[in-house]
Amino acid sequence: MLDDGQNLTHEISAKIDFSPMEEAVGYRLRRAQLAVYQDFTETFEKEELRPADFAVLMLVSKNPGLKQSEVAEVLGIQRANFVAIIDGLEKKGVAERRKSDTDRRVQSLYITDKGRAYLDEITPIWRKHDERQMERLGGPAARDQLISLLKRLYD
Amino acid sequence: MLDDGQNLTHEISAKIDFSPMEEAVGYRLRRAQLAVYQDFTETFEKEELRPADFAVLMLVSKNPGLKQSEVAEVLGIQRANFVAIIDGLEKKGVAERRKSDTDRRVQSLYITDKGRAYLDEITPIWRKHDERQMERLGGPAARDQLISLLKRLYD
Repeated sequence: MLDDGQNLTHEISAKIDFSPMEEAVGYRLRRAQLAVYQDFTETFEKEELRPADFAVLMLVSKNPGLKQSEVAEVLGIQRANFVAIIDGLEKKGVAERRKSDTDRRVQSLYITDKGRAYLDEITPIWRKHDERQMERLGGPAARDQLISLLKRLYD
Repeated sequence: MLDDGQNLTHEISAKIDFSPMEEAVGYRLRRAQLAVYQDFTETFEKEELRPADFAVLMLVSKNPGLKQSEVAEVLGIQRANFVAIIDGLEKKGVAERRKSDTDRRVQSLYITDKGRAYLDEITPIWRKHDERQMERLGGPAARDQLISLLKRLYD
């Protein structure tokens, strides 16, 4: 399915004047990001797991008790989308909100036992997805080079 | 505003275990893309112009008469979002749908005279936005290197 889509795009692209978008940083970033997200979504189609769900679950498992606002901030997720992500994880029973011990007005996030088992199960599959991206790039050195360039755009 | 957001993120990030997302290709792409889009959105805040609006308008100006489906496909925009983008551009009076000469069931896209004037006005501002990204990366060579790596992920 992915291949058909890409071939179709190649066919159409061949007859199109695409300047000056061809070399535009934002546009190229968007296309690459969509391709990587598509691979992720296809990888976890049965799980109905999206990249942001995985990132939140991984972050919360390593840092139990982070505030909701901190998790959203660190991952660059907008508040409106973030609430839906946490609702989804709670519904699956893999994460939960709890009132903070130090400030009852604040909600902290925790992974559940079910969430830990789930994460153990999906992490190797995620690693394969990430390795596929590395292979497309041409290996670990190319991957490190890409990440170093990407960090310059927002660090 | 951008700086404050980034400083806050740095503060929170300092105390957080972020493995294995730290070096994940998809996650890093997403963060860089968000930063570049944020710069774009702030640049064109008054115009209420989003990156996809600009890409569509630029593409249609260079390739008048492309089918809606072709434009969506080439830019990697989902159908549901694409309709809203074209509705917005028509409402602004800068682009228009017309029935295709060769197939009346197909809608083709055109830029209007107002759209051409608008594009002439905003293109230099867009170029400055794109140059800011290039400067953040470290110059034209770094930009070309980034784009070459990004293309490997979806070409």
